[in-house]
Amino acid sequence: MGSVPADLTFVIVEKEHEVFKREGDDLEMAVEVSLLEALTGCELSVALLDGDNMSLRIEDVIHPGYVTVVQGKGMPNLKEKGKRGDLRVRFRTKFPQHLTDEQRAEIHSILQDSS
Amino acid sequence: MGSVPADLTFVIVEKEHEVFKREGDDLEMAVEVSLLEALTGCELSVALLDGDNMSLRIEDVIHPGYVTVVQGKGMPNLKEKGKRGDLRVRFRTKFPQHLTDEQRAEIHSILQDSS
Repeated sequence: MGSVPADLTFVIVEKEHEVFKREGDDLEMAVEVSLLEALTGCELSVALLDGDNMSLRIEDVIHPGYVTVVQGKGMPNLKEKGKRGDLRVRFRTKFPQHLTDEQRAEIHSILQDSS
Repeated sequence: MGSVPADLTFVIVEKEHEVFKREGDDLEMAVEVSLLEALTGCELSVALLDGDNMSLRIEDVIHPGYVTVVQGKGMPNLKEKGKRGDLRVRFRTKFPQHLTDEQRAEIHSILQDSS
């Protein structure tokens, strides 16, 4: 018939992922830890985009805004084969809703000299 | 001379305040407390825009994102005389940078059953 063969054009619309946020080749994910884990350290199993699990051990005090960067666990770079972005893990800390007077007194004696 | 009397026009450009952020008639300020204060309660003296100081006592656990609203301590409403917006005090918690193994062990025994 009279139709002209044309290049196919695909439009790829990226859906927002529930866990991962993309910035260029870097991925950012948010992880929630308890106050206990934030203060005394923790080992987390993090599910990666490719289905793998990564173990992440944090020994630091996880302060508000704490981010740890796992190099090479982001998205593959489309221009440079084998190169990948980084994975940034951002921590949110869940505080206990209520502490007893006894707990408060003990926390006071432990933390009073820390800054 | 031949000049025409004209209305004076003032352009008021609001400068961003270091401590207060304005949203309509409401003001928002950020206050930093230590982890100890966030967990065991605190009494703060907050300097208001008009030069007054306000005492603020918090008994709750101050979790990340904790905001307390002080009604009527915001900006005066220009249309309704005597009416004022609210002051929202948003808390940031400063964690200790380092805890000793002994502190960690004690925190563990205090917080292990709290959620």
